[in-house]
Amino acid sequence: VLVETTVPSVPGRRCRIVYRNGAPVDAARVEALCAKVGWPQRPRAKLEAALRNSFLVASLHLQVIDEEGASASTPQTETLVGLARATSDHAFNATIWDVIVDPEYQGQGLGRALVEQVVRALLRREIGNVTLFADARVVEFYRQMGFECDPEGIKGMFWYPR
Amino acid sequence: VLVETTVPSVPGRRCRIVYRNGAPVDAARVEALCAKVGWPQRPRAKLEAALRNSFLVASLHLQVIDEEGASASTPQTETLVGLARATSDHAFNATIWDVIVDPEYQGQGLGRALVEQVVRALLRREIGNVTLFADARVVEFYRQMGFECDPEGIKGMFWYPR
Repeated sequence: VLVETTVPSVPGRRCRIVYRNGAPVDAARVEALCAKVGWPQRPRAKLEAALRNSFLVASLHLQVIDEEGASASTPQTETLVGLARATSDHAFNATIWDVIVDPEYQGQGLGRALVEQVVRALLRREIGNVTLFADARVVEFYRQMGFECDPEGIKGMFWYPR
Repeated sequence: VLVETTVPSVPGRRCRIVYRNGAPVDAARVEALCAKVGWPQRPRAKLEAALRNSFLVASLHLQVIDEEGASASTPQTETLVGLARATSDHAFNATIWDVIVDPEYQGQGLGRALVEQVVRALLRREIGNVTLFADARVVEFYRQMGFECDPEGIKGMFWYPR
């Protein structure tokens, strides 16, 4: 699936951003992306385990394209510019985690397109209950996409050591 | 791990309730338990997939015991009286689902013991972020156990078709 956004980030070069679901994602590139948005660094081995054991890993990749619109990038030279992943029981529930878009490419609807693709992919796999935990500053972003806070009084809760 | 509760449910017989983590759990028995608390029936094949693909499945079993305190039940004759399961990325996050205790055995702390064992098991596996979605009527139950609603404004959200 192609996100129909072209990005003039490489001067003199045409670019586009491609959405992939289930493509191999290098943990080192995810780490670099997380650092770019200021998330605390997490142990590499745990990040690799989390990617491996997520039900779904969706990613956005920046490709340089040639005159005919063909990709002039290889998977190695593409830039990872977005990520989202979901845990699931493969049957009823999924929870979306780590939604991230490179700050250089924010503000053009990529986050929304990414999450919409993730929701669609989960629904295609017959997951009826798609959930997430949203930071206060992105609650409105998810609400506009069709997510509801606390439906029927259901509350998101986190265990905290006392 | 033994939950230290004896239950005089079988007249003239001594009983106890045993906690197990990762033991095989028969989907038909889970279905019967869910029916007992009035949950809507779910397709058997999906329930089996959900149990198989949960990171952790914890269960409570009623055993009849003999004079010496040994189990007089086989896994086949034990009664399933409680269940909880968790999805996870095996690294950072886990979400607890389907916490259920047989109404006949509620009111003696089994639900609390079950959830505490699940949290401990997740922490032992170095899952730092233990979450759940609580119905309004059980929010207080989880709060007393150390779960917090909406910490730092993080909201639980559910995708609803529009």
